[in-house]
Amino acid sequence: VLKVHATAGSRAYDALIGRTCLPGLGTAVRRVAPGGQAVVCSDENVAPLYLEAATSSLAAAGFAVSWIVIPAGERQKSLARAEELYGVLYDRGVKRTDTVVALGGGVVGDLAGFVAATFQRGVRLIQVPTTLLAQVDASAGGKVAVDFRAGKNYVGTFYQPSLVFIDVATLETLPQRELKSGAAEVAKHALLAGGDLLAATERLSRAAAGSPQAAAVTQSLVAGNVWYKVSVVRADEREESGARAALNLGHTVAHAIEAATGFARYTHGAAVALGLRAALRLSERLCGLSPEEAARGVRLLDGLGLPARLTGVSAQDVSALIGRDKKAAEGGVGFVLLEALGRPITGAAVPGPLQEEVVQWLTRP
Amino acid sequence: VLKVHATAGSRAYDALIGRTCLPGLGTAVRRVAPGGQAVVCSDENVAPLYLEAATSSLAAAGFAVSWIVIPAGERQKSLARAEELYGVLYDRGVKRTDTVVALGGGVVGDLAGFVAATFQRGVRLIQVPTTLLAQVDASAGGKVAVDFRAGKNYVGTFYQPSLVFIDVATLETLPQRELKSGAAEVAKHALLAGGDLLAATERLSRAAAGSPQAAAVTQSLVAGNVWYKVSVVRADEREESGARAALNLGHTVAHAIEAATGFARYTHGAAVALGLRAALRLSERLCGLSPEEAARGVRLLDGLGLPARLTGVSAQDVSALIGRDKKAAEGGVGFVLLEALGRPITGAAVPGPLQEEVVQWLTRP
Repeated sequence: VLKVHATAGSRAYDALIGRTCLPGLGTAVRRVAPGGQAVVCSDENVAPLYLEAATSSLAAAGFAVSWIVIPAGERQKSLARAEELYGVLYDRGVKRTDTVVALGGGVVGDLAGFVAATFQRGVRLIQVPTTLLAQVDASAGGKVAVDFRAGKNYVGTFYQPSLVFIDVATLETLPQRELKSGAAEVAKHALLAGGDLLAATERLSRAAAGSPQAAAVTQSLVAGNVWYKVSVVRADEREESGARAALNLGHTVAHAIEAATGFARYTHGAAVALGLRAALRLSERLCGLSPEEAARGVRLLDGLGLPARLTGVSAQDVSALIGRDKKAAEGGVGFVLLEALGRPITGAAVPGPLQEEVVQWLTRP
Repeated sequence: VLKVHATAGSRAYDALIGRTCLPGLGTAVRRVAPGGQAVVCSDENVAPLYLEAATSSLAAAGFAVSWIVIPAGERQKSLARAEELYGVLYDRGVKRTDTVVALGGGVVGDLAGFVAATFQRGVRLIQVPTTLLAQVDASAGGKVAVDFRAGKNYVGTFYQPSLVFIDVATLETLPQRELKSGAAEVAKHALLAGGDLLAATERLSRAAAGSPQAAAVTQSLVAGNVWYKVSVVRADEREESGARAALNLGHTVAHAIEAATGFARYTHGAAVALGLRAALRLSERLCGLSPEEAARGVRLLDGLGLPARLTGVSAQDVSALIGRDKKAAEGGVGFVLLEALGRPITGAAVPGPLQEEVVQWLTRP
């Protein structure tokens, strides 16, 4: 089991990454929690697969275990569902010293995380992410939220978990579509970090040859992603200094694609992949990214089987929505681009015509 | 205008305390906010008195000002009301760089503070407390929350304001009952801090002779209270190290009194005053507080016109509820007591029979 130590603000916690380590969850949680209640929150996709292993492990470690299983899907990230979870914690007499365990993907982590962050101003939170996207990105970093009307993550806070516990074997039950969605964030981290993480991701990309397999996602690759993520968060927990803005690579165009396609045609990861391709091209045009490195980035995305073409929507519609998302709206559209692989720059100005041109290029036949 | 500088975690902010300084609100906010929108949240008691002054001052300083006025009273601290406020911020297109101004007492500060803390993971928050309780206690320290079912402040977080702006002239429109409620927390701070703050509070107590007047509440007394509060919070923002627990002086018994009387018969401050009297007596019995200092504490409470006798409820009912509140329930009933005025000890064990005895004593004829 690999360990990544994370600090953010005054909090410190470990992320543990293993394969088929889920039976050890209770022991690991016991090291950071004094006992008492553990309430596991999971969804209808994940619970049939992993809830029994998680709860029996926690019970064996001495916790009074209960659980709540919610339907799957982004629509569960609502204030109404949060209120239901508050009611569950209230009815069970959960105290600040008790523990909430989020077992599932990003939706479960964000929702249960927000409830844990705010119930009695914060109970102990354990993230047990079971999707690649949640393992490499969402579970570490402390962002928790629900959606409000059309505003994704519009109600939330920053709240660090006491432990992130990752079993990469859970990826083996993940649909290919979800695996690829996570692979896009892996690629993003690789392009941002460069060095060893880029090399490790390129190995995965070559082995995958367009169709990544869960078994090829190594513990060390996931650990490298968590390490990169928490190193950025450490410098900028609350998105104040700007360091965390680098994580937005590819996302300015991705958010526009998601909005223009009604959040239905593309997974977040697929949209990010297209956004990364746009960022590579813009970086070459504007920031001196060498053609060789840009091509290396494209090969990485291709090998991971990530989409190369934007279809089913007009380039005009997407372009019009660039810069309308929550983050970009603050102080003009600032793109994250790359001077070189591993050397991001934030707040880059991209002229409007060039924004349109690069989206048009994404729709090329 | 007096200034108290506060730091908590990575945040720093000022509390400004003046008399008839409300027309300067906009200028003060402009120093910590770049402009944009300012949304003022107030209630039906406070808005007729001070909303116009606040909004015109903010508008003159260049903010795009709007407001929302909610009914008065603790019942407004609900998730439903929070959701309504999220909708207002959403409809008005409030961004992270915009500002929420909480103009009112503790309910407005807690509710608008919680909404500001969580909308888009945090927009700028300005506290403009208009009650003595909120000025000396609730507005600084960063606790924001709504109630959930019977759980007071059960859904909340810690979120520091960007500015606390106090006009002590607003106390002149405050009902005597509310003034006394705040005076109980002033007395608590005086007993905890000792020294100059105790001396200043004794001057107010002697001048009041049982009926404190708003005009006698000086800027420096309020500033002293804010200074004491933020000095404790600085050491323990999130109630983790235990330093903040000292602020619970008198509250273990007070919470039991409030619960036993259905949160109706006594204001929070009146219950705290009775709790402080119990704490003084227990401190004399258990911690070596001298009879002279205990008597000095009692005189302080008497002069401020704070209740000396518990009526309308049986001592048995109150005793049975001691230690059932949110904080006390963690790890046994720990009382805050005083070795001397200005020297609190936390986590003191008080035997059950002695708890009953002191409550019985409070009900003496």
